[in-house]
Amino acid sequence: MTVPGELIALLKRENAFFIATHINPDGDTLGSALALSSALESMGKKTILYNREHVPELYFFLPGHERIVDSLSVKGLPVVLLDCNDDERAGIDNVSMTYSAVIDHHETVRDFGDVRWIEPRAAATGIMVYYLIKELGVGITADMAINLYTAIAVDTGTFRYSNTDAEVLRVSAELVDAGADPASIAAQIYEAWSERRFRLLIKVLNTLEIINQIAITYVTKEMLAETGASPEDTEHFSNFPRMMNHIKVSAFFREIEDGWKVSLRSRGEVDVAKIAEGFKGGGHRNAAGYKTRAGLETVKARLLDALARGTARFA
Amino acid sequence: MTVPGELIALLKRENAFFIATHINPDGDTLGSALALSSALESMGKKTILYNREHVPELYFFLPGHERIVDSLSVKGLPVVLLDCNDDERAGIDNVSMTYSAVIDHHETVRDFGDVRWIEPRAAATGIMVYYLIKELGVGITADMAINLYTAIAVDTGTFRYSNTDAEVLRVSAELVDAGADPASIAAQIYEAWSERRFRLLIKVLNTLEIINQIAITYVTKEMLAETGASPEDTEHFSNFPRMMNHIKVSAFFREIEDGWKVSLRSRGEVDVAKIAEGFKGGGHRNAAGYKTRAGLETVKARLLDALARGTARFA
Repeated sequence: MTVPGELIALLKRENAFFIATHINPDGDTLGSALALSSALESMGKKTILYNREHVPELYFFLPGHERIVDSLSVKGLPVVLLDCNDDERAGIDNVSMTYSAVIDHHETVRDFGDVRWIEPRAAATGIMVYYLIKELGVGITADMAINLYTAIAVDTGTFRYSNTDAEVLRVSAELVDAGADPASIAAQIYEAWSERRFRLLIKVLNTLEIINQIAITYVTKEMLAETGASPEDTEHFSNFPRMMNHIKVSAFFREIEDGWKVSLRSRGEVDVAKIAEGFKGGGHRNAAGYKTRAGLETVKARLLDALARGTARFA
Repeated sequence: MTVPGELIALLKRENAFFIATHINPDGDTLGSALALSSALESMGKKTILYNREHVPELYFFLPGHERIVDSLSVKGLPVVLLDCNDDERAGIDNVSMTYSAVIDHHETVRDFGDVRWIEPRAAATGIMVYYLIKELGVGITADMAINLYTAIAVDTGTFRYSNTDAEVLRVSAELVDAGADPASIAAQIYEAWSERRFRLLIKVLNTLEIINQIAITYVTKEMLAETGASPEDTEHFSNFPRMMNHIKVSAFFREIEDGWKVSLRSRGEVDVAKIAEGFKGGGHRNAAGYKTRAGLETVKARLLDALARGTARFA
């Protein structure tokens, strides 16, 4: 992985930066931004860390998270976007900028940014920032290591997703040497559920139906109200039925204002993006979704029908 | 980690070995034994792979697993024990042996074995076998890499347990270079549940009670019968309530012939081994258990009482 010289030059040249993380922030955008900020500050520079929303409580263990603000004070600073590649995703689309740099591992659609460093093959933006900090000649501190290890851990499912390669493990080993503690970070990420969320999960699992190797679970507004959990609490619920070896697709329906939001998770060759597109949604081959206004039983029937036809097409 | 010269000499000198894995086999004992067997066979030697029980279906993805037999045919061969350190745990306590070697990372109680290589600080026996194979001058094949990566993954909870250090990650990176696929191994380990097991988990989660940050769940013989799941299927069930951030102890009760088997999992400083010892059981600080003949409500009350007193002692 080669860090563009233009990016290094920019970071060395300027004395202050506005570092923006993406909306609906995750461990990769937050950890990457915090580590880069620490590195730049250790070089005597000033940084403002920005997220349009609040930092989720889950990430309060990240060193420096309290420095992330939601007020826009760009004022002629060069802007650096972490783990996103356009101003809209960074929540700064109504701001006029003097100069902008993008550091991201997602595929790009638009061509935003004066300096663009995009590595779609990197497992996490955290890996890119690790190389960038080394290139800046800054030593990785324990705080930077915790932030970068978390960034990588979140985006690779702590080394369980298909983006986990030897480089991911090697960089993570370096970060452990520098002070990141794998077990305590894993506990922060995976053992931080509220009781409300756990109670909601149990209710959702009780709705499990399995038809033709397709697992269906759902959550109603009433179930959310009964437990006091929030819609965001249902994130990753669709992964649980995938623990079963015969499940090809896990479909999770969440009741919304005017219908249902459907999340699809599949294994191997089953392309749920194609199914979701048929319902005017989208996503990736193994993770996609769509919204619909029909009633629950109709939504189920239509999905099962599409999957039966879809699976036939892919067979 | 230094491999004893005596062990290397033994493995180079002899032409055939009986390799024993421990009863109630897991990924570490099986993967370590299979990798060592492959290495020795590539040196032109013969190996017999033994487990007293059958290889669990979960591990049918390990290359060479079908070579593991349950018939004892030691007949004057030197015996190598993997991931265990006495003949009883290896299920070969009624066999007369010419010579025996032990390769293990567990603390030992007895002094079994002519050559003993014990590394309690190693995260997995798989790490030790990795160094051993390199010391033997054998190149790590893809099959060896899959077996060793699985051994390490199972014993570190794929890098989430406190035994995960930089060396674990570095050795795993080497194994990925040699052909182990992290995502497919993780899927084999974590997404191989039967529907019966998953249905039983849901029933168990429905019994959840939380009292003073202590989570209590249980399984009855009737619940096992209703789902068709086996008692072994309840392994790790006690970990689920630990996903909640406020839970200090997760207690799981399984109904047995003449009472209940209690599994305790705790976080941080809470020492459940001491609690279990009070009920004539045992274990480690954060994972312990005991058996009792009392009825469910009495078992719960006695445990809560002991934990209240115990917690006070540790506070």
